[in-house]
Amino acid sequence: MNKTEIAQEMRQIQLEIVRQLELMDVKAKFCEDPYVREEGGGGITMTTANGQVLEKGGVAFSEVFGPVSSVMKNQLQLNGEEFFATGVSIVLHPHHPFVPIIHMNIRYFELDSGEFWFGGGIDLTPHYIIDKNASIFHNRLKAICDKYNRDFYEKFKNWADDYFYIPHRNETRGVGGIFFDHQNDTQLLTKDQWFQFCKELALNFPSIYNEQAELGMQMLFDENHIKWRNHRRGRYVEFNLVHDRGTKFGLLSGGRTESILMSLPPLANWTYQHQTEENSLENKTLSQLKKGIDWLI
Amino acid sequence: MNKTEIAQEMRQIQLEIVRQLELMDVKAKFCEDPYVREEGGGGITMTTANGQVLEKGGVAFSEVFGPVSSVMKNQLQLNGEEFFATGVSIVLHPHHPFVPIIHMNIRYFELDSGEFWFGGGIDLTPHYIIDKNASIFHNRLKAICDKYNRDFYEKFKNWADDYFYIPHRNETRGVGGIFFDHQNDTQLLTKDQWFQFCKELALNFPSIYNEQAELGMQMLFDENHIKWRNHRRGRYVEFNLVHDRGTKFGLLSGGRTESILMSLPPLANWTYQHQTEENSLENKTLSQLKKGIDWLI
Repeated sequence: MNKTEIAQEMRQIQLEIVRQLELMDVKAKFCEDPYVREEGGGGITMTTANGQVLEKGGVAFSEVFGPVSSVMKNQLQLNGEEFFATGVSIVLHPHHPFVPIIHMNIRYFELDSGEFWFGGGIDLTPHYIIDKNASIFHNRLKAICDKYNRDFYEKFKNWADDYFYIPHRNETRGVGGIFFDHQNDTQLLTKDQWFQFCKELALNFPSIYNEQAELGMQMLFDENHIKWRNHRRGRYVEFNLVHDRGTKFGLLSGGRTESILMSLPPLANWTYQHQTEENSLENKTLSQLKKGIDWLI
Repeated sequence: MNKTEIAQEMRQIQLEIVRQLELMDVKAKFCEDPYVREEGGGGITMTTANGQVLEKGGVAFSEVFGPVSSVMKNQLQLNGEEFFATGVSIVLHPHHPFVPIIHMNIRYFELDSGEFWFGGGIDLTPHYIIDKNASIFHNRLKAICDKYNRDFYEKFKNWADDYFYIPHRNETRGVGGIFFDHQNDTQLLTKDQWFQFCKELALNFPSIYNEQAELGMQMLFDENHIKWRNHRRGRYVEFNLVHDRGTKFGLLSGGRTESILMSLPPLANWTYQHQTEENSLENKTLSQLKKGIDWLI
């Protein structure tokens, strides 16, 4: 597959995911917002707000190319003069405090030197961690990974633990998932298989999220759960703006701000020294925002 | 004055500002939260929530010292092995959308090499810019600056324009104010006079803010103004987490997270491609989030 074909497929993946999310959330209608990137390429950001399940959601496609800028050279250490990148990126913020925030991204990168690689992942940020639901989520990811390589799940699960970590809070962002970058080892998978792996992750995304949403919506909630949800959304903002390398690189390299920051939540709250009660579900959640938890069980 | 005396005065300044803010906002009670810094020193963070005027506010004092870490050496390019730093830092987030967010900071820094400097400033972030109020604010700052040096206001006003700027939004954070760092030119002011200047800024802070609060509270507001306020608070978060050098340095160097992030607002909101109406007060505000505006008139 060449880069143009991969980009075309990425766009189809975006449309298919949007179609399925609109079936899942009958009140969610995604609007298309296309844009052109001055240096080459562009994207189509599709967003929704105030659905039945989704308070805010974005499914972004982009296909960008052009000269490797000095910012890219410094930050990504690229050996090439011209690059091509395409991908699909999703963040969904639900209303219901027991339905988790979810993030998915798959991406393809190519240099004029001939070098290429894939990256991607799915990770889950529950406002309230429910062990059983986290386990269902991780088992879904493992099943997909296992079809391609028996080592992928463990390797990419640990990578997600390390990546989605907030040092200044000493917390992981959520229960993790899988994350991988710069994958091009053709001894493991052919180039087409690598893309197939990314595609399978992305196409499974709607059903993985639908399952989590249905599980979460069985729970009753009140104003206090909403407050906690908004507090946890604050942490999501902190991770994305202070630590997420994708966000930082995007903003610094003159990426399209609105598309990059579509990941930020609707209402978020910061309270000084937020307190939780002993033996509460909030405290249980905090105790599980750690690396290295085996969620498969 | 030696560093211990300066730190003692800083603590008194904190208490005096809190006393006056509690007079201004009869429902605001500040709680003291002292902490110890492992490497040396510590601080006392005083915060309030859900007052009559102030939805959230923090007045922080700190006095920290110890070895110059490698992070400090790299980021601040310090010529010394041991440092001492003390200061007072304030951020207030009001309920009323027509009352501005305000930030004030004064700080003293000293190295074992004998080098020392002062820094500080006050800047205003109105959710809605009202020319007259911004002018009153800047004239107050100019009056204080002029007592010390006729060039200070212009120099430090431009510095604030440059510092409180959000490149990825191409917006200033608000209407600016004054900002200065690394000031120790004893040809301009003696060391005592430099501290006197910082002190005068800080001690004028409550009346400067009281004036702005009273002006803002004359305006009527509804749900739409609240939504805009929350949207603008989102931008405040973006500046602080992505660009503010103080915040970034604090988080990276292992500062006390809760004290550093007391600056973050209560409810903040992000909407994809937030739209404003032609000829609206929101649009007028956006058109004035620019460097180089002369607010004195």
